This record gives sequence, C-alpha cells and structure tokens, in this order.
Amino acid sequence: MGLAPGSFVFTGMQKVDNVGIELIQYREKEFIQTSLDTIQDAIQNVKKSTEYTNWLNIEGIHEVELVEELCKHFGIHRLTGEDIVSVGQRPKLDEFDDYLHLVLKMVMLEGGTYMSFEQTTFILKDGLLITFQEKSGDVFDHVRKRLEEGKGQIRMRSADYLMYALVDAVVDHYFVILEEVGERLDELEVEMLDNPSEKILAKLHGIRREALQLRRSVYPLREVVSQLSKIEKSLIHPETKLFLRDLYDHTIQAIETIEVFRDMASGMLDLYMNSISNKMNNVMKVLTVISTIFIPLTFIAGIYGMNFKYMPELAFSWAYPIVMLFMFIIAAGMVIYFRRKKWF
Amino acid sequence: MGLAPGSFVFTGMQKVDNVGIELIQYREKEFIQTSLDTIQDAIQNVKKSTEYTNWLNIEGIHEVELVEELCKHFGIHRLTGEDIVSVGQRPKLDEFDDYLHLVLKMVMLEGGTYMSFEQTTFILKDGLLITFQEKSGDVFDHVRKRLEEGKGQIRMRSADYLMYALVDAVVDHYFVILEEVGERLDELEVEMLDNPSEKILAKLHGIRREALQLRRSVYPLREVVSQLSKIEKSLIHPETKLFLRDLYDHTIQAIETIEVFRDMASGMLDLYMNSISNKMNNVMKVLTVISTIFIPLTFIAGIYGMNFKYMPELAFSWAYPIVMLFMFIIAAGMVIYFRRKKWF
Amino acid sequence: MGLAPGSFVFTGMQKVDNVGIELIQYREKEFIQTSLDTIQDAIQNVKKSTEYTNWLNIEGIHEVELVEELCKHFGIHRLTGEDIVSVGQRPKLDEFDDYLHLVLKMVMLEGGTYMSFEQTTFILKDGLLITFQEKSGDVFDHVRKRLEEGKGQIRMRSADYLMYALVDAVVDHYFVILEEVGERLDELEVEMLDNPSEKILAKLHGIRREALQLRRSVYPLREVVSQLSKIEKSLIHPETKLFLRDLYDHTIQAIETIEVFRDMASGMLDLYMNSISNKMNNVMKVLTVISTIFIPLTFIAGIYGMNFKYMPELAFSWAYPIVMLFMFIIAAGMVIYFRRKKWF
Amino acid sequence: MGLAPGSFVFTGMQKVDNVGIELIQYREKEFIQTSLDTIQDAIQNVKKSTEYTNWLNIEGIHEVELVEELCKHFGIHRLTGEDIVSVGQRPKLDEFDDYLHLVLKMVMLEGGTYMSFEQTTFILKDGLLITFQEKSGDVFDHVRKRLEEGKGQIRMRSADYLMYALVDAVVDHYFVILEEVGERLDELEVEMLDNPSEKILAKLHGIRREALQLRRSVYPLREVVSQLSKIEKSLIHPETKLFLRDLYDHTIQAIETIEVFRDMASGMLDLYMNSISNKMNNVMKVLTVISTIFIPLTFIAGIYGMNFKYMPELAFSWAYPIVMLFMFIIAAGMVIYFRRKKWF
Amino acid sequence: MGLAPGSFVFTGMQKVDNVGIELIQYREKEFIQTSLDTIQDAIQNVKKSTEYTNWLNIEGIHEVELVEELCKHFGIHRLTGEDIVSVGQRPKLDEFDDYLHLVLKMVMLEGGTYMSFEQTTFILKDGLLITFQEKSGDVFDHVRKRLEEGKGQIRMRSADYLMYALVDAVVDHYFVILEEVGERLDELEVEMLDNPSEKILAKLHGIRREALQLRRSVYPLREVVSQLSKIEKSLIHPETKLFLRDLYDHTIQAIETIEVFRDMASGMLDLYMNSISNKMNNVMKVLTVISTIFIPLTFIAGIYGMNFKYMPELAFSWAYPIVMLFMFIIAAGMVIYFRRKKWF
Repeated sequence: MGLAPGSFVFTGMQKVDNVGIELIQYREKEFIQTSLDTIQDAIQNVKKSTEYTNWLNIEGIHEVELVEELCKHFGIHRLTGEDIVSVGQRPKLDEFDDYLHLVLKMVMLEGGTYMSFEQTTFILKDGLLITFQEKSGDVFDHVRKRLEEGKGQIRMRSADYLMYALVDAVVDHYFVILEEVGERLDELEVEMLDNPSEKILAKLHGIRREALQLRRSVYPLREVVSQLSKIEKSLIHPETKLFLRDLYDHTIQAIETIEVFRDMASGMLDLYMNSISNKMNNVMKVLTVISTIFIPLTFIAGIYGMNFKYMPELAFSWAYPIVMLFMFIIAAGMVIYFRRKKWF
Repeated sequence: MGLAPGSFVFTGMQKVDNVGIELIQYREKEFIQTSLDTIQDAIQNVKKSTEYTNWLNIEGIHEVELVEELCKHFGIHRLTGEDIVSVGQRPKLDEFDDYLHLVLKMVMLEGGTYMSFEQTTFILKDGLLITFQEKSGDVFDHVRKRLEEGKGQIRMRSADYLMYALVDAVVDHYFVILEEVGERLDELEVEMLDNPSEKILAKLHGIRREALQLRRSVYPLREVVSQLSKIEKSLIHPETKLFLRDLYDHTIQAIETIEVFRDMASGMLDLYMNSISNKMNNVMKVLTVISTIFIPLTFIAGIYGMNFKYMPELAFSWAYPIVMLFMFIIAAGMVIYFRRKKWF
Repeated sequence: MGLAPGSFVFTGMQKVDNVGIELIQYREKEFIQTSLDTIQDAIQNVKKSTEYTNWLNIEGIHEVELVEELCKHFGIHRLTGEDIVSVGQRPKLDEFDDYLHLVLKMVMLEGGTYMSFEQTTFILKDGLLITFQEKSGDVFDHVRKRLEEGKGQIRMRSADYLMYALVDAVVDHYFVILEEVGERLDELEVEMLDNPSEKILAKLHGIRREALQLRRSVYPLREVVSQLSKIEKSLIHPETKLFLRDLYDHTIQAIETIEVFRDMASGMLDLYMNSISNKMNNVMKVLTVISTIFIPLTFIAGIYGMNFKYMPELAFSWAYPIVMLFMFIIAAGMVIYFRRKKWF
Repeated sequence: MGLAPGSFVFTGMQKVDNVGIELIQYREKEFIQTSLDTIQDAIQNVKKSTEYTNWLNIEGIHEVELVEELCKHFGIHRLTGEDIVSVGQRPKLDEFDDYLHLVLKMVMLEGGTYMSFEQTTFILKDGLLITFQEKSGDVFDHVRKRLEEGKGQIRMRSADYLMYALVDAVVDHYFVILEEVGERLDELEVEMLDNPSEKILAKLHGIRREALQLRRSVYPLREVVSQLSKIEKSLIHPETKLFLRDLYDHTIQAIETIEVFRDMASGMLDLYMNSISNKMNNVMKVLTVISTIFIPLTFIAGIYGMNFKYMPELAFSWAYPIVMLFMFIIAAGMVIYFRRKKWF
Repeated sequence: MGLAPGSFVFTGMQKVDNVGIELIQYREKEFIQTSLDTIQDAIQNVKKSTEYTNWLNIEGIHEVELVEELCKHFGIHRLTGEDIVSVGQRPKLDEFDDYLHLVLKMVMLEGGTYMSFEQTTFILKDGLLITFQEKSGDVFDHVRKRLEEGKGQIRMRSADYLMYALVDAVVDHYFVILEEVGERLDELEVEMLDNPSEKILAKLHGIRREALQLRRSVYPLREVVSQLSKIEKSLIHPETKLFLRDLYDHTIQAIETIEVFRDMASGMLDLYMNSISNKMNNVMKVLTVISTIFIPLTFIAGIYGMNFKYMPELAFSWAYPIVMLFMFIIAAGMVIYFRRKKWF
C-alpha cells in the first residue's frame, strides 16, 4: 500500500524457517542436483554452466532481499520482482524482452481434505528456469524423478519444455483435487437422499466455497496457456507448442469439471430445500389428522360433561353407548376422508 | 498422474475380454470385411492395399501395447496415443501434419434407460481411417451395411467421407437419446400435474443430471465440426464440406434440444415446488377450519362443566337447548365466514 | 436414422390427403395462377415460361418421391431434399452454387389459441421460387392477392423479392401470435391480482412453454435474415437488401417481445408465489389468534371442572362471575395484543 | 398485416386533434419560427430557404397522407415512411443515400408518476431536419430556447448538431425519469424495512415492469448512437462526433442505472420474501408456545374432571393445591425452555 | 438539464469551504510544493516552469468559474469541463488532440465503515497533470511523499508516470476497501452459522448494495486502463506501458474479488433462508409432538368426565388406574413413534 511500484513487499502469511535453494542442472547424459545455502552460490553455479539447462527452485519467498538479489543478477524487472513476493496474484503470463514471467496457483490437499493454495512463479530465460514457491513441498517430484532417471525426452529438450512439464504437473494435480471434491459431492448426494439433515447444507456451502476458490485459480490459467502457445519467441520452441496445446485441453477440462460441480451443487440445493419442505408437509399432516379427528370428539365429550340440570339424554340408559358409537362413526369417516386425500 | 507426457496409460474401467480388430477395405466395386487376431496382421493388410480405402476399427483400448504399436507403425504422435487410451477426454479435433485426430463421445442406451458414454477416437490418414472404441457394440452398423451393399455414394468417396458418415451416425444417435429423455420429461410432467409426489423430484433431478452429462458431450462437438469444415488440407475433400455443414446443423439442433430440456426441467421444478406449497396450504386450511370452529365451542362446553355451586343458568330448564343453539349459531357463522374466504 | 445422408425420409406427422401443387406465374402486366395435378405438369409449365417469374407452391411433403423428382429436375442437392421432407429443422439458410435454401417455421393459431408450427422451405433459383409446406393453409394469401391485383411493386420485381415478401408475411404473423400471447399474459396478471388460484400457475406454465417453443423458431431467423442480406450473388438484387434490412428489424423486434414476455412471466411467478405465502400467512394468523385466545380459557374452565372435594372457591358465591370476568379480561388483553401486532 | 411493404398505416392510439406543423429556420444571426396550417406551406417554405438550417417538426402522425406527401417531396423511401407512422418501432438508425433515419422513444412523466412513451423519428437531410412525434408536448423546449436566444454554438452549426442536441435532450430526460424511479425504489425500501405489507410487492412489481419497458427503449439507443458516430458521410460533421461520444457516455450511464435498479429490485424482493417468512415464523412461535404450555395442563385438569367413583386423590384435602402447584411447575419449566430457545 | 452541451454545472452535494489549489513541480533533483490562493497564480506558475513536470491539484469543484478559467487557459474542451464539474460520471477515458481526460471514482472509508465515493478527474497534458477532486482529503499522500523524498524513479519520469502512480494509488485503495468488505462478510458468516437472526439479513442486504456500488466504480476502470495502455501518442511513454499492464492486472483482480463477494453473499442468503426454514420446522415439530400426544389423551379424559347416568365403568373400582395406564401406553407409543421419525 502506497509504495512505489516495483517495491518488494512480502504479503503472504506462510513463512518457512529456512529458504530452500535447490539447483538442478542437466543435459542429455548428465544430471546434477545441488542444495545450496546462499543465493550467491546459486548464481555462481548457474553462471558457469551455460551448456546445461538450469532449474533454480526457491522455496520460501518471505526473504525479499534474496529475491531482489536474484532479480538484479538475472536482469528481471522490478515489477516482476514485486509480483513474485506479493502473494494473491491471479494467474497470468507477462512477456518481457528476454524472459517470460508466469504465475499460477499450486493447489494441494493438506490433511486429506483442506485445500492449500500456494502461489508459484516461473521465470523462463534462455537455458534457465527459476521457480518460486511460498513454502517447501510441491507437486514436482514426478518431474524431478523423470529428470534424474532420464525417462522420456525431458533431458533432451530445453528449459521451455521443463516449464511445460512443471505447469502440467500442477494442472494434473488439479484433477486429483477435483476428484476429491467430486467424491465428496457424490457422498453428500447419497446422504441427502437417505437422511437430509441440517449439517448437509453447511457441508454443501463449504464445497461451493471451495469450488469458487478453485475456479478463481483455474479460470485465468486457460488464458495463460493459450497466450503461452502463441508466443513467437525463440524462448518457446515450436516442438513444445504441441505439448502446450495438450495442456490447454487439460485446462479446459478442469474448468468444465468445476462448472459441472457448480451445477450439481445447485441441483442438490434444490433437492435439499425440497426435502425440507416435504418433511414439514408431513409433520403438518400428522398434526392436522390428529387434531381434526380429536378436536370435534373432545367437544362432544365436553357437551355431556356440562352440569345442566335438565339434560334428558343423560338419564337415558342407552345414551352412553350411542354417543360412543356416534363418536366412532365421526372418527372413522374422517380417517376414510384423509386416506382418500392420501394424507397418511 | 506424474508420468511423462505421451505415456500410454489406460484410465477407463470398461475392459472387454478380447480386443476386437476389424478391417474393412473397399473401393467402388469391391468390399472386403476381415476380422483379425493380431495387430500385426492388420498393419500388414493395410500396407499392401493402398488402392483401397481402409477402415481399421479397434474395440477395446485397455491393451495399451497394441495401441502403441499401431501408433508407431502409422506415424502417430505419442500425445495422440496418450489421448486414445485415456478416457475422459472432451470432444476435440487436433490437426497434425499428416493426420487428423478427432475424439467424441458415443452415447448409447443400455437396458432401455441407462445412458452409457463411450469415448471414440478417429484417426484420419490418407486412404486410412482408424477408429478406437472402449468396448464392443457401436452405432455404426448402418454405415457398415451401406458400405457392404454399396448404397449411396459412400464407396465412391474416400476416407474423409467415411469419417463424416461415422460421426454423423453418432450425432444421429444423440437424437434417439434426446427423444427418450424428452419422452420421460413429458411423462413426468403429466404425472406431476396429476399426482405430484416426492418421487418425481428425484426423477427430475436424475434427468437434469443426465442432461448435464449429455450437454458436456455434445457442446464441444459443435466447435469440432466447425473446425473440421474449415480445414484446408487435402485430407478433407471440398465435396465433403457440404456434408459437414449439414452435420454442423444437426449438432446445433442437438444442443438446442438439450437447452430446451433444461428450461423445461426448471419450469417443472417451479411447478412442483408450487404444487407442494398449495398442498400444504390446503392441509393448513383444514386444520384451521376445524380448530377454529371447535375450539371456541369446546370452551363454552367447558364453562358449563365447571362445578361452581352458584351457577344460576345450570338450574334454568331451557338453558341446555339455548346453549346448544348458541353453539350452533357460532359454528354456522364461522362456516359461512370460511366459505366466503373460499377456504373450502 | 442410419440412412445414407441425402436420403428422403418424411419425419412429420401432418399428412394431407392430396398434395396441393399450385403454380403462380407473373410478369409486370400478367398473372397466371394454375392448380396442377402432377409434378410433371408443374415442371413442364415452369420450363417453358422463362420470361415469367415462377412461384411453385407445394402443400404436403409426405410424398417424398414427388420432392425427389422436383429436386432432380431443378438440380437441387440431395442434402437439401433430405431437409425439405424432414420436419424439425431449425431455421437456416444454406447457400448453394445456383440456388438458396431457406427453412423457417410458419406459426398459426388453430382454434383461436393452440399454436401450430409448420416447417416451410424456400428454394430460390433464378426466376423461380419453390415453397414447401407441411399442409394446406398458410399466411400467404395477402401476398397472392397483391400479386393478382398488381398492387405495389411486387410484380415488377423478381423472385428474390417474392421470397422476401413471403418471409415477411411469416414474420408479420409472428406478431399476431405474440399479441395473442401478450393479451393472455395481461389477463392472467389481472386474474392473479384479483383471485390467485392454483389454475393460474398451470396456465402460466403453459404460456412459458409456448414462449419457449416460439423463441426457438424465431431466434435463429435473425441470423438467417442477416445472412441473406449479406449474400453477394446475383440471385439477391441490391434493391431487395433494403427490404431485408427492414425485415431484420422486425425479427429483432419479435425476439425482444418474446424476451419481455419471459421476464414478465417470471415476474408473475414471483408475484404468485408471494400471494400464496401471504394467504398461508393469513390462514395461520386466524388459527393462531383463535387458538391462543381460547386454549388458556378452556384450561381455566377445566380447572373448575375438576372433582376435588376440597376446592374452597367452588362454594364461594361470587366465584363464577369473578372467573368469567377474569376470562374476559384475558381474552380482551389478547385481542388488544394481536391488534397491535396487526394480526387481524 | 398483409400489406405491401412500404404501406403507410398508422398503428398507434394517440391521435391529436390537429396535427401541429412547426417550422424553425435559423442561421448565425437569424431565427424564424413559424406555425403552419398545411404541409404544402411547410414544403414551400423549406424549399426557398436553402441558406437556412431548417427544422420541420410534425406533432401527430395519424394523418398518414400528410406523412406520405412529405416523404414524396423530400425523396424519403417508402419503408422509412412506413416506419414513421407505425409506432412500436425499436430505436434504430437507418442510413440511406442522402438522408439518415433515426427512431427513438421519448419518455415523459404524466401526472407525476405514469410514464408515457412517445415514438420520435428524426429525418436528417442536408440542411434540413424533420422530426415526427406522436402527439404535442415534448422535451425540446430548452433546445428551442437556445436556438431563439442564440446561446452556445447551436446556431453556428448545421442540422446534424441540431439532431444531436434534440437526441441529447431526450437522453437527458431519461435521467429525470430514472431519478424518479430511483426515489420510488428508495421510498419502497424504507417502507419495506419499517412495515412490510402486501401492497409493497405490487408496487415493486410495478416498478420492475416499468424498468423493463424503459430498458427496452434505452438499450438499443446505445447501438444507435455508436453507429451514428461512425458514419462517414458529409451529413455528420467531424466536429459533431465529439458531442456524439459524449452522448454515447450518457446512454451507457442510463443503461447502467437501469441495471442497478433491476439488481436493487431483486435484492428487495429477497428482503421482502424473507421478512414474510420471519413474520410467519413469529406467528408460529406464539401459537406453539401457547399450545404447548396449555394443552398438557388442560389434560391434567381433564383427568381430575373424570367421574370415576374410586379416585382416592379427589378426597385428599391437599390434592387441589398440590395439582395446581404441579401445573405451575410444568408451565414454568416450559417457559424457561422456550426462553432458552429464544422463542419469545 | 436542458442546457447547451458544454455548460459548466456543478451537480454534486459535497462543497468544501475553500477550494484547495496545490501545485507540485519537480524534476530529477528538485521538488517544489506550493499552496496557492487564486487560480491565476497557479496558471502563472505553471506557465513559466516548462522545464519542470507540473502537478496541479484542485480540491473542490463547486466553483465552476475556476474550472472554466482553467479550461480556457489550458485549451481544454468545454465538454471535458462539463464532465469535470458534473459528478456522477462513470469512469472513462477521452482522448483529445493534445490532452487526455480520465475520470474515476476514488473510494474512501469514512468513520471506519461508511464508503464515500469521490469523483476524480485527471487531465494529462505535455508536462502537466491537473487533478480535480470533489473535496479535500485523498489517497495520494504516499505519492506526494515519494515525490518529495525522490524515492524510486518517479521524479525521473514525466507526467504520464505521475498519472499512472496516482491511478495506481486509487486502485490500491480499492483493495483496502475490499478487505474491509471481505472481513465483514466473514464475520457475518460466522454470526449466521452461530445465531441466525433477522438483523443479519439487513446487514447482508447492506453489503450487497455497497458491493453493487463498488462494482459500478471498478468495472469500467478495466476498460479505461486497457484503453490507456493502447494509446499511441507521445503523451504516454512506452516505458510507462509496462506499469499500465501491471495496473490492469490489479484492476482485474479487484473486479474478481467483487464477483467472489457477490457469489459469497448469495450463497449466504441461501444458507440463511434455509436456517430459517429449519427453525420453523423445529418449531412445528414441537407443536406437533405436544399436540399429538395430549389431544387424544384429553379426549379420553373428556369421555369419563361425561355425566351419563349409566356408565358402568365409572363404578368399577379398577377403572381409574386402568384408564391411566391405557393413557400412559398411548403416550409412550407416540413418543416411540416420534423418536423413530427423529422428530426430537
């Protein structure tokens, strides 16, 4: 707030104890993974290894001086630096003269259900990819393994393909999350049809809120990937574009799944509201049937409980059974009437 | 999850016992239909019959090695191969240098009502069409028959027309499904107006869900067909484009029908909610009429049931009939009042 | 289903007994109207009258051989022919090398209220307009009269203007239908404010359904007319385009009217739902007022109806009037309380 | 209905007794205002004053011959003429070779609240502006005054600026109407929060309907003004376009205000529906509290009102006070329970 | 209303006592801040300092003569002047030959919660930025400080960068407001789940209204900033465009946040409506359980309270305990029944 544009201010709440600096360097036949202590070491290492493809992964962005130094060394604009440390960016792709700046949200499940959103920034330069994460732990392990084992073509390709592979890993993980959400929706639907209780609505409300948050992370990504595949720079090799098209399809699929969940959730809300109405209706019917049958009978009993001196019926010896029979007929008539109306 | 892009992983649940390999070869005056055991035979057969149009139909995609081999032999990209065996693709058209890759959902009714969705992939090369289905059984029998009998112009045209004919068969079948859904909606509406019960809502909810699923399969197809008819390659002959325009119209019609169903379903939901309200209202009226008439009367009877020593009325000989008359007047007055309010 | 594209299959339900074949031929000073028995005669007549503008009107499309023959003679593509006999097309315009194919829905009121939809196809060739209707009876009589009487400029212009005039007649008739619908909505609104009953909802539902159907016929027409006015062929004369622009405005107006009806209908639904709530509320208030006043009083009467031996009040001579007064005070207090709460 | 296109048929209901013909002619230093009796005089006057800018204002369009004559004299197309006399046009701009045809709806308040819509047509030719109104009375007085007093630059500019000034006057008046509607909405909101009664809903329904109608008049105007400012003809001077851009902004503002009103109205509907629910809830609570307290007590009193011979309690001298105490405890317990549940 | 376009009429309600005139002049090494009394002084000062970048800030726009004089001196079009003094403009950017005119809404919190909207106009000329505010007090203090202290690059850049910095300050402040709104929504949600009372709805309604108003201010800004970054004039330096892109991202983010709030608010409304339904349901259940248990029992007690002479049971010595037992069984049966139905 109120600072010059391009000021480095950390806006997040997730601080890791130690900023993790990991440097992976590879070429077709070689793979070197180093864990570094200071950012200077990292810069040094990258500088002298131009024949390798370098992936510099920073976990923890609250030490803004570190980010600032990196930016200075690699010629990254101050506005980009500001965005890296200011979490709460929406996914976007910014094109600069000699690098690309891509932001997205990595989503992970914590403790099985709680979604944790982590801002992840990619800086793609010629022969170098820098990634910034808010904290340690990510969805990139499969990519690291493929790099190490030299599986597939990943080592044969350059940094743009690495970036694609990492973004793809993030998008693939969205589907894990979506599957989890889908399962919870299905469980909720079964529960709702079996035993609609008040708690379900709070759960449904929770899912809708999460879907809203997820949607906010995934929607802009479509635009980002589409933009990426249209870049006419040497940074993005033509062969990579085929993979970006595939990634684009995945993004669309994720968006559609979220939309379907929203539709399902609102359909379930209708269903719930209605089952509540129905229950209320049934409660009312019981009340009405019981009241309607007994209130008139009680009135008749009340009449013959009056203490008037001159009530000739009272002395008549068949009076009691006749009145009882009369009451029975009224009650039976009403029962038949309600049965016909299908009230019970 | 986490595999290199272009890995062949089967993600479906529908495994057939034996993968069916069917090869149909035709030219204007000839038609050969062969059922093959191994994929090598199929490749062999196709290779030596370049003067024919070849349709290779694979039923069952869980044997990924088979698909992999096919892809290798016919120069199909690994990403395409990945998509073929990974069900859950949204309908799309991917253009490659020397082939087209089209995915869509074939929908069939199983057991009369349950919709089964099957991913169907078309690979169109020069003189060769390969189709992949998840399981045996399809909607292509009419096309096979036309090929065999040489009806129409199908044998005179090349593989692109065959692909059009097959996609057209899939879209035509959507209308069969839509008609079925439409009939169920109509039945439901009649039932709702006659006898609105709680079960109807669950049925309506079911139809809405199915319509949602169907919509998801049909919507992207519009884009696919439009894209197909704009391709400027020799793979798609100009004469075929006229037919693609026709197909496009059918797709739009299917989409519109689904939209109309959605509108109808939500209109019916309103109707249902209201009929529930009305029923409740009527129940309440009965309760109110009965209670309102008898509660005051019971009170009067209660008064004369009190045991005070000095209640002069009790001894008065006309008291009983007068009180009874008074009660009758009150009751009659209320009945008239409620009649006027049109409560029954 | 499953036939070769371009197969002539009648899909409608409206079969006329005799297919009506009507041929109108005119030039500036001449007008000839002939009713023909066979399609061969029609073709013959058209062929030898190239100096006239010919309008060939076919009523009844279930005799597909007839349509097939016409198509063959006038060089009309098989796909067009298929569309002519297959009712359920959405309005569209297809451009072919030497003719235009336009489909729309003619809507007429049957028996004053029931809307009947009839698919109408226009084939415009140089100097010839062929129209296909599902059954006899149309909205073209005014155009026939203008042709016969030579009023306006219709005879001086060629077949494209005739097609415009006929489409215009169809669109003009939409407004007749819309006026009818609008009047029914207005009546319903008055009825709803006066005496909201359950029947109104069913009526409203009916109107919404009809509006939905009408919308489906009118919406695509906008696109059709816009497309028509952009055609750069000699078939459509530049002077006609001014009229097409006018027609386009009318179509937009019809669409807007339908949208307004939809908005009105949903506004009325809100109003209705609310009046139901209000009624229920009033019923509840009556029940509550009566119950709340008399239940406590009945309880008091019940107390003094108990048969305990030692109830000193019973013997007290002023007890009865005092209790009655006490009851009256309670009742009066409650009445005042409810009045203040504006419950009655 | 059914007439040749370009037929002059008056479709409105607002007939003035005398058609008012007003001719204003001005140049930088001169201003002449004439009221004419016949259309021939007007035509004559316009013809001989080519060095002036002429504004011919016709109030009353039911005398179609008059309009027809004007059209003939000034070379206006029959279709334009048809539109002038046929009220119910949606706002539009039609470009012809040597004139512009603009239609919009002038909205005025009648009797303080009732909105009256009047179709106003502008025909802009070189040096001449003809306006047609349905009846006498308009929102142009301020423009007339500015013309007469020579204030601002209006007299120095030509007919296109005059048209702009008049359309601007109409749009300015929309804001007067919108302010009125806004005030009514605000009043309604206050009333709703204070004392939500059934009448409010009818009022709200009325406002929504009016907003719907207003929206229909204003929405297409945006397109009209945008189109106007893009015309590349000498009829519209480049200097005027700056003013048209300003006018465009005003139109957007009017549209946004209407949208905000719609949102507010639907928010208020929610609020109302809810306050009704709340009221009902409160009524139900009173009923429930009273019934639940007294029904069990009445039952106990009923027990001791039974006439069994052997009821030992009856003879017990402390029985009566004990039972009364017991009843009091039950009642007090329930009151405490309901208080805790916050039912009253 | 009714004035010539370009008339200076103040339409706001916020009049400051003294119009504040503040002139800030700076170049790389110099910073001069002057508070001036008359507009002439300001004009004089600006004129002779062409080597500086000048920022003239006017607080208070009700003195229209002052604005008029400024416009005249700096060659600003009358239409721009009209817009400056007429509050209620929607955010927009107007391009003129030698200056830019940008309007937006500055939003501030007054007294912690009440949002105050202030129209702010920017006039950007070569080397000069004029800003007009409705009243004193703004969100620009941080920018002033940066200018004074020479922090960042602000002093090294020209007037377009200054304008960017000020607009950025306004947009940054939107986020302060949005955070406040978000916190209130969160508090409301907690309150709603804990203790849903009638007041919550009014609060929710209030927040929705404010969000509506905020949205109206922020939405058009997106268009404005996008337009600004596309201007191809020397007024906007290419280096500034990078910052405008950043600003554009912020605007989108603000819009998205507002949309999320709208979604959340409507989700909460559903939740509230439902909790009301649930409460009502529970009230009804209590009523029904109590009534249904005691009404039949009261009837039985009523029977044995009748005064018939010949009621043999009355004399039977075990009658009383048997009847009591019978009543107890009925009551217990009902309690079990209701427990099973989970009514309490």
